[in-house]
Amino acid sequence: MKTAAIIGGGVIGGGWAARFLLNGWDVRVFDPDPEAEAKLAPVLAQARRALPSLTDVALPDEGALSFHFDMAEAVAGVDWIQESVPERLEIKHKVLASVQAHCPPDAIIGSSTSGFKPSELQEGAARPGQIMVCHPFNPVYLMPLIEVVPSPATDLALVEKAETILRSVGHFPLRVRKEIDAHIADRFLEAVWREALWLVKDGVATTEEIDEAIRMGFGIRWAQMGLFDTYRTAGGEAGMRHFMAQFGPALQWPWTKLMDVPEFTDELVDLIAGQSDAQSGHMSIADMLKARDDNLVGMMRSLKANDWGAGAVMNAHEASLRAGTVLAAHADDLDDVSEPILTVRRAVPLDWTDYNGHMNEARYLQAFGDATDRFMALIGCDADYIATGGSYFTAETHIRHVDEVHAGAVIEVRTQVLAGAGKKMHLFHEMYEGTRLLATGEHFLLHVSLETRRPSEPSAGIVAALTRIASAHAALPAPDGAGRAVGQRP
Amino acid sequence: MKTAAIIGGGVIGGGWAARFLLNGWDVRVFDPDPEAEAKLAPVLAQARRALPSLTDVALPDEGALSFHFDMAEAVAGVDWIQESVPERLEIKHKVLASVQAHCPPDAIIGSSTSGFKPSELQEGAARPGQIMVCHPFNPVYLMPLIEVVPSPATDLALVEKAETILRSVGHFPLRVRKEIDAHIADRFLEAVWREALWLVKDGVATTEEIDEAIRMGFGIRWAQMGLFDTYRTAGGEAGMRHFMAQFGPALQWPWTKLMDVPEFTDELVDLIAGQSDAQSGHMSIADMLKARDDNLVGMMRSLKANDWGAGAVMNAHEASLRAGTVLAAHADDLDDVSEPILTVRRAVPLDWTDYNGHMNEARYLQAFGDATDRFMALIGCDADYIATGGSYFTAETHIRHVDEVHAGAVIEVRTQVLAGAGKKMHLFHEMYEGTRLLATGEHFLLHVSLETRRPSEPSAGIVAALTRIASAHAALPAPDGAGRAVGQRP
Repeated sequence: MKTAAIIGGGVIGGGWAARFLLNGWDVRVFDPDPEAEAKLAPVLAQARRALPSLTDVALPDEGALSFHFDMAEAVAGVDWIQESVPERLEIKHKVLASVQAHCPPDAIIGSSTSGFKPSELQEGAARPGQIMVCHPFNPVYLMPLIEVVPSPATDLALVEKAETILRSVGHFPLRVRKEIDAHIADRFLEAVWREALWLVKDGVATTEEIDEAIRMGFGIRWAQMGLFDTYRTAGGEAGMRHFMAQFGPALQWPWTKLMDVPEFTDELVDLIAGQSDAQSGHMSIADMLKARDDNLVGMMRSLKANDWGAGAVMNAHEASLRAGTVLAAHADDLDDVSEPILTVRRAVPLDWTDYNGHMNEARYLQAFGDATDRFMALIGCDADYIATGGSYFTAETHIRHVDEVHAGAVIEVRTQVLAGAGKKMHLFHEMYEGTRLLATGEHFLLHVSLETRRPSEPSAGIVAALTRIASAHAALPAPDGAGRAVGQRP
Repeated sequence: MKTAAIIGGGVIGGGWAARFLLNGWDVRVFDPDPEAEAKLAPVLAQARRALPSLTDVALPDEGALSFHFDMAEAVAGVDWIQESVPERLEIKHKVLASVQAHCPPDAIIGSSTSGFKPSELQEGAARPGQIMVCHPFNPVYLMPLIEVVPSPATDLALVEKAETILRSVGHFPLRVRKEIDAHIADRFLEAVWREALWLVKDGVATTEEIDEAIRMGFGIRWAQMGLFDTYRTAGGEAGMRHFMAQFGPALQWPWTKLMDVPEFTDELVDLIAGQSDAQSGHMSIADMLKARDDNLVGMMRSLKANDWGAGAVMNAHEASLRAGTVLAAHADDLDDVSEPILTVRRAVPLDWTDYNGHMNEARYLQAFGDATDRFMALIGCDADYIATGGSYFTAETHIRHVDEVHAGAVIEVRTQVLAGAGKKMHLFHEMYEGTRLLATGEHFLLHVSLETRRPSEPSAGIVAALTRIASAHAALPAPDGAGRAVGQRP
């Protein structure tokens, strides 16, 4: 079993500890603060909550976690030492000396420093070859990027070993080919920070307006494609050279407070265009456009579930599309409930489909689940009611897959009540594209107390609404496929 | 029915046209290019493919789209005119004059300009009050942000009307309170672009390395929280003042090529801290941390489906967790197939759960679908085989929900073959947390030709593997719940 020594707790050290620990490594934390264990606990809790979500296969069992005040104990025999002590060179030198006095000579020593170059860290070191920058991003237990920066004195074989280890715990190691203050990413953050400070100072925008300008626009793009690929894609079939011919050294004019800009020579243009081709020339622009939109859709839709950022914008728009239609109605608003009720009408989104463009099996149940939720709200079991402690849980579901449907198709679900009395509700959903039947979903639900998680009586209002519809639907013929078992003869 | 006139086709004009059209507006496109319709077609196709994915309720029917070479025809009686002509002031002035000679005096005139201030656009205009900047982000049919910039001469009631309309078509209008070159967001892009050019020129990083430094790190954060909220969250309970005390006017030191930085006075600190409190003081830092991680997980997991960016990193890590286990095996690798086979072992991710932290109904089928896919791969119906044109489609599914399970719990699915011969496969999945039964899924599948979408014979290899397991499992007792219909007596 591999062992990592984490020198310095806190948000960054704790994130490293969590990443290693949850990937099965033993972790020893060294921090002179007697409260170190208590301070690490919240970061560990956050990591235990979120990191396992990243893979569809379970992580290994957690390793052993221990806390140490003796450096020799902390680093004896370990495979990896990660230094995350305060950003003062003299402190880092002192700590690295202490580490190297006791650690294996072939262990990886990574520094989380955001500001120092590896050659600065190596000054006066007993074994400079062991030392490299491994700069993470908060939260370390989620963000893939680690900027790996060797100096010319660092042992390159050890750097490659470090990168292999980083990949094995789910990181994306980015080799920084030339040491430079702040490496790569933080230089961009610094540039944006300074421009943001000017905007706030000059009263052009508040912190909130700046944040929305980021997260409602290019911020979403950059979660899936960086600066150059975004412009390559936008430049269309004419490609990167065309984009740069149009925009040159300044995206428009020298607007910012930020004065210094490189001269846009043919050499620089060639360099950029060539690197862009090497990076993404294997994809056509059409493919990049398709990938971009697939990615944006998937990410934006995920924010809907959290009603956050762009997702909140989409939810509000959706609410306006529902308003005044049966998709937002209460049963009392409907004069005629004699027919199955429309509970879903939506396009099949891109992220519900497979590479063939057909809706995935599980999404049929997602649509039927949405239909059930809508029907529940229709009879009064809406978000407000659920907040008072009652809801319906699904006990049993039967789905017949009749036909395929493509991304973009508008599907409708109509819901018939087969039975609704007391704690029980038995629904039959039919999914159509136009008049083409796609699937049926038969569901048996029980009203429950969210406190006890046991069956309970619904409110009088719900009983009344459900009874009214159940009675009206009792006159309807039994739908095709109701009451089937899997593999039953037709 | 509302009508929008789009002046200038192309990527931006086309994006606006698509956004209005797909939200039910009639759209008239004015562009002197005889190829305007052909040039718009790809953007429209992209929009039709992606925009309907954003809402879980169907958009209205598309409006009518027409192309015009006569300005009077294009703008007579319209509600909104959006100008997206080339970024030269004299061209914009000419076009705006032509628009105003023929459009309603109370129509909204928005300019997509990324560089000019509204007061510059208004120079010499017949009715300056109608003119405002409405600056979009590519692709306009997906990105929520529109920077709305009035000048002091713009009619504020018209600006508010414009913002209402923008919301109604799914945008996020951001009022820019003080006109400034490039508005807000592009000033940040400009700052990053210049720093990136230096890094490429100085050989510190290639375009690809810069892009990965963005999209594997802060780029993902910025899709859900902007600059200030990210630092507020990272600053912990001590908050924004503490963060700024630590970092001040430079996140570290004046590293960048970008020289000019504002003086960090108490006044500036107060301003920033106060605005940050106004922006996000309604949430505790703990809540922001939780939201952040929920958002990051959801977005990163969505990129797995596309095997893109951070999603590809996660898929690779997951593959290493499967390697050498039954979760990556072929049936031929298994000596003993007499027991139900482990097909899923994973943690319940955060985005599979509802506000109560319990796994959503539809995700049970997603897990069972994953189990079916794993079993298919086990018998040889893997991605390579599917690429040759054969697969299994699910015809019928029966799910019994037995118990609830929380985010983070490790669930296992074990799969028993009830029947497997010829084109048919009948599987029974049981989902457990430890020894606690959570749900069962019974599935009937048919092997199909992906070309004809009709049942077809599987390959000899698949038949052999399936037959071997079906024979071994025939000796197992029938699982509890197999062959049930919904609502059947136990």
